[in-house]
Amino acid sequence: MKCIIPDERIDYDGSQIGSLWAYAQFKVQEDSIVSFRGSCDVSAYHMIDLEDRMNEEKIESPDMIHFIVEHFDSTSLALAYTRQRLLACIALEALIDRKVLVTRSGDDLYYDGEKMSVAIASTSAVSHKIHFGINVHSEEWGSLAKGGLTDAEADALLAEIGSRYAAEHADIERDMRKSRPLGVFT
Amino acid sequence: MKCIIPDERIDYDGSQIGSLWAYAQFKVQEDSIVSFRGSCDVSAYHMIDLEDRMNEEKIESPDMIHFIVEHFDSTSLALAYTRQRLLACIALEALIDRKVLVTRSGDDLYYDGEKMSVAIASTSAVSHKIHFGINVHSEEWGSLAKGGLTDAEADALLAEIGSRYAAEHADIERDMRKSRPLGVFT
Amino acid sequence: MKCIIPDERIDYDGSQIGSLWAYAQFKVQEDSIVSFRGSCDVSAYHMIDLEDRMNEEKIESPDMIHFIVEHFDSTSLALAYTRQRLLACIALEALIDRKVLVTRSGDDLYYDGEKMSVAIASTSAVSHKIHFGINVHSEEWGSLAKGGLTDAEADALLAEIGSRYAAEHADIERDMRKSRPLGVFT
Amino acid sequence: MKCIIPDERIDYDGSQIGSLWAYAQFKVQEDSIVSFRGSCDVSAYHMIDLEDRMNEEKIESPDMIHFIVEHFDSTSLALAYTRQRLLACIALEALIDRKVLVTRSGDDLYYDGEKMSVAIASTSAVSHKIHFGINVHSEEWGSLAKGGLTDAEADALLAEIGSRYAAEHADIERDMRKSRPLGVFT
Amino acid sequence: MKCIIPDERIDYDGSQIGSLWAYAQFKVQEDSIVSFRGSCDVSAYHMIDLEDRMNEEKIESPDMIHFIVEHFDSTSLALAYTRQRLLACIALEALIDRKVLVTRSGDDLYYDGEKMSVAIASTSAVSHKIHFGINVHSEEWGSLAKGGLTDAEADALLAEIGSRYAAEHADIERDMRKSRPLGVFT
Amino acid sequence: MKCIIPDERIDYDGSQIGSLWAYAQFKVQEDSIVSFRGSCDVSAYHMIDLEDRMNEEKIESPDMIHFIVEHFDSTSLALAYTRQRLLACIALEALIDRKVLVTRSGDDLYYDGEKMSVAIASTSAVSHKIHFGINVHSEEWGSLAKGGLTDAEADALLAEIGSRYAAEHADIERDMRKSRPLGVFT
Repeated sequence: MKCIIPDERIDYDGSQIGSLWAYAQFKVQEDSIVSFRGSCDVSAYHMIDLEDRMNEEKIESPDMIHFIVEHFDSTSLALAYTRQRLLACIALEALIDRKVLVTRSGDDLYYDGEKMSVAIASTSAVSHKIHFGINVHSEEWGSLAKGGLTDAEADALLAEIGSRYAAEHADIERDMRKSRPLGVFT
Repeated sequence: MKCIIPDERIDYDGSQIGSLWAYAQFKVQEDSIVSFRGSCDVSAYHMIDLEDRMNEEKIESPDMIHFIVEHFDSTSLALAYTRQRLLACIALEALIDRKVLVTRSGDDLYYDGEKMSVAIASTSAVSHKIHFGINVHSEEWGSLAKGGLTDAEADALLAEIGSRYAAEHADIERDMRKSRPLGVFT
Repeated sequence: MKCIIPDERIDYDGSQIGSLWAYAQFKVQEDSIVSFRGSCDVSAYHMIDLEDRMNEEKIESPDMIHFIVEHFDSTSLALAYTRQRLLACIALEALIDRKVLVTRSGDDLYYDGEKMSVAIASTSAVSHKIHFGINVHSEEWGSLAKGGLTDAEADALLAEIGSRYAAEHADIERDMRKSRPLGVFT
Repeated sequence: MKCIIPDERIDYDGSQIGSLWAYAQFKVQEDSIVSFRGSCDVSAYHMIDLEDRMNEEKIESPDMIHFIVEHFDSTSLALAYTRQRLLACIALEALIDRKVLVTRSGDDLYYDGEKMSVAIASTSAVSHKIHFGINVHSEEWGSLAKGGLTDAEADALLAEIGSRYAAEHADIERDMRKSRPLGVFT
Repeated sequence: MKCIIPDERIDYDGSQIGSLWAYAQFKVQEDSIVSFRGSCDVSAYHMIDLEDRMNEEKIESPDMIHFIVEHFDSTSLALAYTRQRLLACIALEALIDRKVLVTRSGDDLYYDGEKMSVAIASTSAVSHKIHFGINVHSEEWGSLAKGGLTDAEADALLAEIGSRYAAEHADIERDMRKSRPLGVFT
Repeated sequence: MKCIIPDERIDYDGSQIGSLWAYAQFKVQEDSIVSFRGSCDVSAYHMIDLEDRMNEEKIESPDMIHFIVEHFDSTSLALAYTRQRLLACIALEALIDRKVLVTRSGDDLYYDGEKMSVAIASTSAVSHKIHFGINVHSEEWGSLAKGGLTDAEADALLAEIGSRYAAEHADIERDMRKSRPLGVFT
């Protein structure tokens, strides 16, 4: 899969979760993870999480690192959400490498007890997608800044999580191609 | 899914990776994770990883904590391996909570640069399964003992990883049931 | 799966067949069957059956017992329709237990030669659903009243069909977890 | 799908549940239901139900009507077992038409409180299959004879259940081809 | 699958690629290939190919033979596009039989270096579809006329490609029902 | 996917159709097509086609070009056989480019009315595979030699068909990533 890091900031407004966004923006015709920085402000119209939508929750942040993953190999929701959790774990590992001791609960990361991320996953008839975002700055919530990362370190983190996820996917694809089928216990 | 912790030790010899082992042993008729302690000695006959089998690698350890996961909702290899990676991440998180600073590369955990785990995943026509094992004691390789955990702490860890995996699965199943389908970027 | 019986009447207008209706109404995050009583009046806009829609058929009834089933384990139309047939059979069995000698043809139940039910099944990208309704009272069509059931008996029937379907589903899930893969005839 | 009724008796010994049996015997290259009469005696070797196998249960009967169903459209265990239940319901309906008031619990039929049937379903990598058998004569268990059917009526029943199952399948396939996708409740 | 050749011309405007079009027009409740002749003029609104849509390409032709294929057995994009390529190959074979030496690149046919066809494939939640069109007359592009075919020959070709595709599909379905599962190389 | 052309001849005996053969021989951990030259002699034991096996047909040839395709993205038999047909078409196109006017019927190629190829496809729990072979020399059957190709031209053909199949697969994967989901005709 392709790991894409656009030059410019992109403000996440929920339209990026639509299938084929990466193709429309970057002409990529592979599975992809796009990593970028920008604000986050999702209107109810674009909310995939029906819980948030019904509660008229605002999902907003002035400054986040964002990851948009799109896979075309399956439209399984179980696979979409398992990959989302794996992406959250990869982010946690990259932060722990930087001595930022975050914890994870489901698809959320926490720093010092404060939630610092947003996440969703879903599927259309042609692809499944994940959005995962981590606050860089936030007064109200946890953030990379509170964890001690500078803006430049946030940008480096963004690139590293993207390339780690792509490498993990390639590694899984290789493992799938050397495993014998299971026998049955008798 | 059911989290099972047998009272007795079970020595892993590769037969436990067969489909329906958990049913045959514990009469469980749900998806399951069985967590147990015992040695590890896998003959070529039972090796699922064709790479190990061809290299006539010995997979052995005197004392491990083991996890056997079985899911019947899909026979997708991609899902099997993604769940395997997630299980490895959950183990890493539980170790970091205990101040054992392990790192992960694919399906392997490392302590102080030494590999401390074995892992495989595959599928039959009826279910997919994961085996994941972590050394408790090992002269040659990394181990929980080298990381400072006592035997009792290894047993507690075994139980915690099992229940965390089951909880994570339940959480994913709930998330799948509140997500609207994706639209398409236009 | 969860069996839900709301306290109030719900008039079926076709909107209930949409994915995630049960979540939106009852916060349920499991597969579910919702059993309720109310009228039935489906506008062309909500018609899933293209045959009815094109024929501008009116689907209406003053008083029905309704069942809304939603499964998230697959988006297979074949599975959706096979489960719909099984639900119709379960309704038939519950009626025969009450000495109401109905017969079934496909997804329709008949009493004394008169059609007494409506049914549809379909899928979105995230779930598949079934609507099945049986007339309690109807001048024009067959009904439970014509079969000799009182209003209170119709309410009891509604609850029983819902819980039977949920029990059947649990039973199937258990059977799936004790079956060895097939060999091949040689 | 093809409904096949061989001229001769076939004694069911478990080999018939193997994938491609119908092709090997009858050269059929469609999905199929083969309906026949014969004894039933399944050795542990051929047992698909691991519960029976482990309990060393004997599955035997001197005289049964048998149905062997094979579908190649999917290897989903959920679909295999749902189709198995539907076949049991179709058998129940055909018996009730004959005034034999059987009841069903899961994949078993009962007459006068006595179990009168055996059933299994499973999948290989290429097809899924169902075996369903109903006692014609049995001292120990329920049977069609106890329900008042003659041998000739048992033969007619065998043919009718086979053709009803095939007709039901054709009806489902047609319904799948006139249903609009679901919208989402908002 | 059913091969349908309507009596009248149909001008392709992109609406025909929608799921269930064949049912709505011809009441067919099988998988189908509809072969017809008419112009081609697809507005951006109906464009499935996002590349064309974004480039505001005009897809138009005064006179084409068209093929609309719909399958309900799967919603796999990989299968949809592989079937599309196979349809293009079948068209090529039928043309070579007529001494029109076309070549193929992906989903496009070329005559004398000039592109003479349009093609798309995609899926909804209920079916996958293919549109394939070949110019009969065109000043700008390759066409059957340039290849030496008369209008009557174009009509015969239209019928033959339709029936060849349906026959190929039936042949594949038969092959699927006589193949043993693969073993594993050891 | 990887296109592999081994230096040495490989005599096809049916063992090469087993899943993971390409991994065991060439350590490839991608989907692959292996193109090689050698004799063909398949014992009944290795026959995947049950028709051949039952008829005790001998499948043998002194000299063939062979193609072994393995995909791990799906275990769908429909996809396996559709890809097999596409491979046969690609071989036909490469031959027509060389003025060898072969024709195709299903998975067989014919030269001058003589069958010149063998083919099979099937699936295990982990991958699906295709074997396709074309006679280079054969007294009894059609062959490339009868079509006028030299031995060196047969070797060049072998390489070209392999790389064309791999390129076609890459092209399909790209097309899958730019197609909007289908709407529904209303």
